[in-house]
Amino acid sequence: MSERFFLAAPPADGRAALEGDEARHLARVLRAKVGDAIVVFDGRGDAWPARVATIARDRVGLEVGPPLARAAPPLPLTLAVALPKGDRQKWLVEKLTELGCARLVPLVTTRGVAEATPAAVERLARGVIEACKQCGRATLLEIAPPATLAGVLAERDPDTLSLVADPTGEPLGPLLARHAGAVLALVGPEGGFTTEELATATAAGCRRVAVAPHILRVETAAIALAAGVQAASAVHALPRERLS
Amino acid sequence: MSERFFLAAPPADGRAALEGDEARHLARVLRAKVGDAIVVFDGRGDAWPARVATIARDRVGLEVGPPLARAAPPLPLTLAVALPKGDRQKWLVEKLTELGCARLVPLVTTRGVAEATPAAVERLARGVIEACKQCGRATLLEIAPPATLAGVLAERDPDTLSLVADPTGEPLGPLLARHAGAVLALVGPEGGFTTEELATATAAGCRRVAVAPHILRVETAAIALAAGVQAASAVHALPRERLS
Repeated sequence: MSERFFLAAPPADGRAALEGDEARHLARVLRAKVGDAIVVFDGRGDAWPARVATIARDRVGLEVGPPLARAAPPLPLTLAVALPKGDRQKWLVEKLTELGCARLVPLVTTRGVAEATPAAVERLARGVIEACKQCGRATLLEIAPPATLAGVLAERDPDTLSLVADPTGEPLGPLLARHAGAVLALVGPEGGFTTEELATATAAGCRRVAVAPHILRVETAAIALAAGVQAASAVHALPRERLS
Repeated sequence: MSERFFLAAPPADGRAALEGDEARHLARVLRAKVGDAIVVFDGRGDAWPARVATIARDRVGLEVGPPLARAAPPLPLTLAVALPKGDRQKWLVEKLTELGCARLVPLVTTRGVAEATPAAVERLARGVIEACKQCGRATLLEIAPPATLAGVLAERDPDTLSLVADPTGEPLGPLLARHAGAVLALVGPEGGFTTEELATATAAGCRRVAVAPHILRVETAAIALAAGVQAASAVHALPRERLS
């Protein structure tokens, strides 16, 4: 067994424990036995090989080995997204986790269709752990508290490239090709940002970008932004002469 | 009403008709009346304004105006994908349509989990029309007949950039940044391509590319490849001096 499990608390003295959903997944779904080998990760970039030492109701005790090589940090990308409804939320989080996005802010907008209730945010956070286990990512996608456009814009670092998805904007690729640092991208609800919201974003320095020449669904725009930043980050990591 | 509908047969003498699902959607779901204005598209890049002239069971007659401006062609991207199961197929097609991919080939692989039966291909084609109606795309994503790796590789144009998704490959971004033409990208099943399949692809000139530093689900890799090609195409369309 080389399945990966999320540790809510880091190992101490070579021991750790899985609790709650993680313990149930290992003990009941996968029917682990004492001595089985797994990998555990703390969601902050560290991972360890481990062996099952004890199995109790809702708790699996582990003996933990020396840490594995630390994973590369996630992309310096914050996506502030007016959450879509139902399954599309689950998809959004799964794909952003797989594609290396660092942070998702549920964006409160005038035309938003889904409220980021504490239960919804908890469901998103659980989806992040599931996706990390599946894709091998060691650092959780951070699910930030819900925020308004003004709130998200106020807390940016000064050298962040700020983008707002807009079907009438300029193409995404060239902007990313010219910028190697942190990116904040805003994605509005199905009905789009209001004129006032777009004006707030552009007045605060956001560039309006069209991700594709069509009207994209909320989660498509967000996923394509993450994929675009992921592809561009590898270009920026190369010495310039290799690009010619 | 400015909803968009797919025309199976092009207009003739200023008249056209919606049939089957399209007629039922307009007449029964949207309860159209004679005189209502819609837009129709033929899936080959042309679209027309139209008015409802007659409503019968499973057939809506239309009066069609002069053609609208022809849309830009889709990205010169063929994705050959070992189809995932269930809803993930539907998502794949919806997202590839929104992101402008030209052609999807259901790829027959050793470890594939979903067979591209005629019913499945028909379902995918229906999903393409739905997505085109929603996102405003005028040219259908072509769903090609299922093919093997050897079949797909044999039918390429000679100057196509051929990629095979592989978590141990080189980063995607720099390759796309250096290539402005047609792209063929192969995405294997959940269990990955076999060693023999990867060898066949690389022997035929495919570059192994890692889309992100994680193990991606089939549909995530395919969607991220489409997003990457879409972003790169806008870079290539710019005069070089604007990139500095």
